[in-house]
Amino acid sequence: MEHIEKILEFIVEIEKLKDVQRKTKPVGLERFENSAEHSWHVCLTALMLKDYANEEIDINRVIKMLLIHDLGEIDAGDTIVYAGQTTEYKAEEEAGISRLLSILPGFMADEFIELWREFEAGETADACFAKAIDRVPPLLHNIHGDGHSWRTHGVTKEKVFSVNQRIEAGSKDLWSVMRGKLEGAVNAGILK
Amino acid sequence: MEHIEKILEFIVEIEKLKDVQRKTKPVGLERFENSAEHSWHVCLTALMLKDYANEEIDINRVIKMLLIHDLGEIDAGDTIVYAGQTTEYKAEEEAGISRLLSILPGFMADEFIELWREFEAGETADACFAKAIDRVPPLLHNIHGDGHSWRTHGVTKEKVFSVNQRIEAGSKDLWSVMRGKLEGAVNAGILK
Ligand SMILES: [Ca+2]
Repeated sequence: MEHIEKILEFIVEIEKLKDVQRKTKPVGLERFENSAEHSWHVCLTALMLKDYANEEIDINRVIKMLLIHDLGEIDAGDTIVYAGQTTEYKAEEEAGISRLLSILPGFMADEFIELWREFEAGETADACFAKAIDRVPPLLHNIHGDGHSWRTHGVTKEKVFSVNQRIEAGSKDLWSVMRGKLEGAVNAGILK
Repeated sequence: MEHIEKILEFIVEIEKLKDVQRKTKPVGLERFENSAEHSWHVCLTALMLKDYANEEIDINRVIKMLLIHDLGEIDAGDTIVYAGQTTEYKAEEEAGISRLLSILPGFMADEFIELWREFEAGETADACFAKAIDRVPPLLHNIHGDGHSWRTHGVTKEKVFSVNQRIEAGSKDLWSVMRGKLEGAVNAGILK
């Protein structure tokens, strides 16, 4: 029962992810997205697009990765992907997720910190696909939302294409469709 | 590529779950929770508590169930668990999730509508556990939030204990801990 108490303490602590504000607004909403609802959204995006991964993936591991991928932001905050991430920020994120996982019974933390590191490294087939998926909803937010975060942060089309081409490493088919949508955004004048 | 286009259309449509307001406030926040961030939270709650299910469960199926369990609310809205759910509401929810899933390529919808029905029926080991988990965060919100939704909706302690005892069907150990916390809430005077 002592373990359950600790797990519930963790469950309450991670509520804070609902208060981490991201840089884009969900389609149709006037407010910014938070990292908790984003985490749900990418899990379903991965589940529905799993058959389009370049390599064989374990979708259950991908979903677990995506459920925890942003927990480090509770302590470190969200950053915009186009700014790149400093070594300091990455260290802060890892310290953050380690702090959270340390609330859990001791034997549980290791599995999840390993999974988080695998995601961050982005080298395995599962991590490559998870990282590709993580890029999709914010692009859709901009495409369907007049390029609001591109405009606010002065992100050029060259930057958008170069940063998001990483989608291709996880799924060539998905990148082909997303690239088409981004070209549409350029033609519509919302990505410059 | 046509299939990917349809899946992305679905991904945009389900954004609306981020705008479905629930009846409790996340711990530490002044606003109500939405059903998308709730869905993320219950997935992690299930993952961390999986070893305490009464019966053998498939945690990957449980997580899939929880990722989609509230999608019907996009059309039907959220209802308070203590009011009970009418046949009309359940039909509205099923029509809602069917409408959403029908956006997906045809062969994909069946798996998810079956999974949703299994969750709703609450009879299999996976569904029993998923339904138990679904009750936990709103109780923690009240326990750590001065019983705000119990007070607002005039929910008595008798009702709270009887409705949430369903947790026991999924996990006796979890119910034992949660029952202790609810008794603590009664003693503290926030559950009457
Ligand atoms: Ca619900």
